[in-house]
Amino acid sequence: MNNKIAIFPGSFDPPTNGHLNIIIRALNLFPKIMVAVTNNLNKNHWFSLEERINFLEEITKNLKNVQILSFSGLLANYVKEKKIFIIIRGLRIVSDFEYELQMATINKKLNNDIETIFLIPDYSYSFLTSALIRELALLESDISNFIPKCIEKELKERAFLIKKKNLKVCKK
Amino acid sequence: MNNKIAIFPGSFDPPTNGHLNIIIRALNLFPKIMVAVTNNLNKNHWFSLEERINFLEEITKNLKNVQILSFSGLLANYVKEKKIFIIIRGLRIVSDFEYELQMATINKKLNNDIETIFLIPDYSYSFLTSALIRELALLESDISNFIPKCIEKELKERAFLIKKKNLKVCKK
Amino acid sequence: MNNKIAIFPGSFDPPTNGHLNIIIRALNLFPKIMVAVTNNLNKNHWFSLEERINFLEEITKNLKNVQILSFSGLLANYVKEKKIFIIIRGLRIVSDFEYELQMATINKKLNNDIETIFLIPDYSYSFLTSALIRELALLESDISNFIPKCIEKELKERAFLIKKKNLKVCKK
Amino acid sequence: MNNKIAIFPGSFDPPTNGHLNIIIRALNLFPKIMVAVTNNLNKNHWFSLEERINFLEEITKNLKNVQILSFSGLLANYVKEKKIFIIIRGLRIVSDFEYELQMATINKKLNNDIETIFLIPDYSYSFLTSALIRELALLESDISNFIPKCIEKELKERAFLIKKKNLKVCKK
Amino acid sequence: MNNKIAIFPGSFDPPTNGHLNIIIRALNLFPKIMVAVTNNLNKNHWFSLEERINFLEEITKNLKNVQILSFSGLLANYVKEKKIFIIIRGLRIVSDFEYELQMATINKKLNNDIETIFLIPDYSYSFLTSALIRELALLESDISNFIPKCIEKELKERAFLIKKKNLKVCKK
Amino acid sequence: MNNKIAIFPGSFDPPTNGHLNIIIRALNLFPKIMVAVTNNLNKNHWFSLEERINFLEEITKNLKNVQILSFSGLLANYVKEKKIFIIIRGLRIVSDFEYELQMATINKKLNNDIETIFLIPDYSYSFLTSALIRELALLESDISNFIPKCIEKELKERAFLIKKKNLKVCKK
Repeated sequence: MNNKIAIFPGSFDPPTNGHLNIIIRALNLFPKIMVAVTNNLNKNHWFSLEERINFLEEITKNLKNVQILSFSGLLANYVKEKKIFIIIRGLRIVSDFEYELQMATINKKLNNDIETIFLIPDYSYSFLTSALIRELALLESDISNFIPKCIEKELKERAFLIKKKNLKVCKK
Repeated sequence: MNNKIAIFPGSFDPPTNGHLNIIIRALNLFPKIMVAVTNNLNKNHWFSLEERINFLEEITKNLKNVQILSFSGLLANYVKEKKIFIIIRGLRIVSDFEYELQMATINKKLNNDIETIFLIPDYSYSFLTSALIRELALLESDISNFIPKCIEKELKERAFLIKKKNLKVCKK
Repeated sequence: MNNKIAIFPGSFDPPTNGHLNIIIRALNLFPKIMVAVTNNLNKNHWFSLEERINFLEEITKNLKNVQILSFSGLLANYVKEKKIFIIIRGLRIVSDFEYELQMATINKKLNNDIETIFLIPDYSYSFLTSALIRELALLESDISNFIPKCIEKELKERAFLIKKKNLKVCKK
Repeated sequence: MNNKIAIFPGSFDPPTNGHLNIIIRALNLFPKIMVAVTNNLNKNHWFSLEERINFLEEITKNLKNVQILSFSGLLANYVKEKKIFIIIRGLRIVSDFEYELQMATINKKLNNDIETIFLIPDYSYSFLTSALIRELALLESDISNFIPKCIEKELKERAFLIKKKNLKVCKK
Repeated sequence: MNNKIAIFPGSFDPPTNGHLNIIIRALNLFPKIMVAVTNNLNKNHWFSLEERINFLEEITKNLKNVQILSFSGLLANYVKEKKIFIIIRGLRIVSDFEYELQMATINKKLNNDIETIFLIPDYSYSFLTSALIRELALLESDISNFIPKCIEKELKERAFLIKKKNLKVCKK
Repeated sequence: MNNKIAIFPGSFDPPTNGHLNIIIRALNLFPKIMVAVTNNLNKNHWFSLEERINFLEEITKNLKNVQILSFSGLLANYVKEKKIFIIIRGLRIVSDFEYELQMATINKKLNNDIETIFLIPDYSYSFLTSALIRELALLESDISNFIPKCIEKELKERAFLIKKKNLKVCKK
């Protein structure tokens, strides 16, 4: 079994400093980390799959042994096909925990070889989620401490566009 | 950094099938697992340090790459001295989670190189704790599904002795 | 008071093996179980009220003393009108628990005769929710262990249709 | 299967208004309720088994279909022997919930016929535990709203004795 | 620092008896309470900003030292501009708690002078949320105990309109 | 009502940097803070009441408007007698939250004028409890970041004495 490669799946819409922290820590544990962006057509994203992949490539360009890729469909099937058996997930809070427990159990049921391991991000990132970052961007908050520099500008512009569109709808 | 060895600390009083499950799964992730029994003089145990080490050696005798040892004092110091940087912990329920979050944070503060990773035991073990097993033994419950065969008999005898002692005290 | 009949309300979109497990266990407690499908026009369902009723009738056809029906409006009013006083709910995880506590309290406030009782589904179903099953179906996961055989095919077809519709929308 | 009788186990040290509330509500669900006091020699109680049984008999003397009894050993064995299959438990808060989930699972494992059902006590009792009542009594708090009248006086006297004993110890 | 004024932010869609309870209790702590209604164009509300402000003015008209106002954008920025440093929030349940912890932390990060204090509403309001009240109104439940009298009629009418609109959509 | 004074109760065995953080923040909210050390004869403490008061006086000597005192018996009675109506508590984690909810409810029941307000300590202190600090001291951990300088030495000496005593007991 090729247990040296671990996969870190997520929607990364957009990637945060918390995601980056998990990637760096995972590199201390396993020789190679594949960051896998979900390509889920049924969910609304702020950033396209391509944009999210570009963000991740940009922020990990100085890290060795990181590969960015995307997958669609079921994670349990994807890792089977790729012969990867280690899934990495970040755990922040109790509400996270129950969802992650549920997903780890279902993945184990669907593919018994899968091992999900959980890392706890540094305390200063423990409140960070992509959803929170998007909400802060809509509210024109300073977000410079929460996301990598290269994503900040694009996130602000996206927030501006999204607000403009909504305003129009409301004016009808 | 020697990141190939992971340590699985605990009091193992006694080891359960849930502990064994975590050890086996950790072996799929890392080439060597050190099971470290806490030698904490300030806590009451049912089994002596030596007994607990013997139990673990017995139940892992067919597993390669497992080493049983003991440590006293602070885990963060012990792993520093041994140059081990990966701590493995099992996560079962929400109440576990907050305590483990607290310990992982404190260990990280005391030794920034430490990475604590969490594994979720198989669902059939998710209710198992050594404390529960001891309570069931006191109540003369069937415990054959919860602990390795070789520990079952000794646990029953210990429970019998502990009950006898308490009864005497009450009769005074 | 006719306290022999208990009602098991839900949206059952679709029914899972976990729902069936609760129904069977409730039949050991009460002589008759009414499974009540919510007819809530303000929520989006994958399956129509009729389809959900048909599913439940199909999977309970060999069980005596089960009646499938639907209700609209407030559960507290419906049970008052029907002179049923026992509501059965499944409890899986902590997040469930707080919501259920809230609903049981509000139902008790609205109709003091109501008693809500909670059953815990078998461990192998504890991660199952209709929402999870729908998500797995969209991802083309194997779902044969999670829902009754007769629902599996229809769920797959529905997932296919829903994905096709979304894809079209995205292609515009 | 004699599923008409339900058992409500506990240590009842002492019984509170919250316990009484659960007993009364359980009587609306099942024709007979057996209140089973644990006789556990390994735990310290404020009140002897006999005292706790007397308290329960006193406070339920006007309720039909309630029987007070005691049991030692494992609940799962006791109910098997008595051919009772319904265990009733009160659920107040999240921390309760995880413990109860664990016990319901273990009881089901030890005796598959057992069904544990959970009732939520009235909101005004949701903070009540015997341990809290004992602590309040030690602090000479007014406890008249929390426990039945006939227990209040005896609890105050017991608290007084316990404090006196501790004070002596401290004066040595 | 003008620490005498505290702000109680929320969407109040609509205000409930629970909100009123928090306002009254906060007035025992601080000489002046500003109730700040979020004007968030990206969220769907049942009631317009103007309506929600009117509701709050109506239900607090007999309370001294309460001011109703609205704000858009980030709360942390708004309080900085207004030189208010005390944010009041109600805490009901565990799920609330983690979200509030997250928001209090982020607000503190964005503006270190901010102090968020939490009040626990009276037990009889602990299950009340605006979302629950709206759902009950849609189901034509009696809501007279949960919201101030003057809001009840308007909420019922709004629920009626919302249901009619949805029904039309469904009939297409 | 003298609502300007707030009380911060606790056992402070010993005080930590987290306690100090709450005291400092409370001083931004209220003109005077009384830190009230519980004098509870039924609990085992590492430090005597006098020592704990001395610690608090030492670490708050440069803060204006802080008074250190002790109380025995019920907090709800003590604050009534002292005509203080504001209790301050720190909230760190979910497990804290449920206990604090319970205590705030009981205090409100015993004395309706009491208002308990909760502050969340800075993130870097969110894992700190006196119990954890004592455990770390026993394990000879570096604790310099967790407790005020002037307490550190005394805590280490106390830990040494406690360990010596336990060792003797074990050698018998």
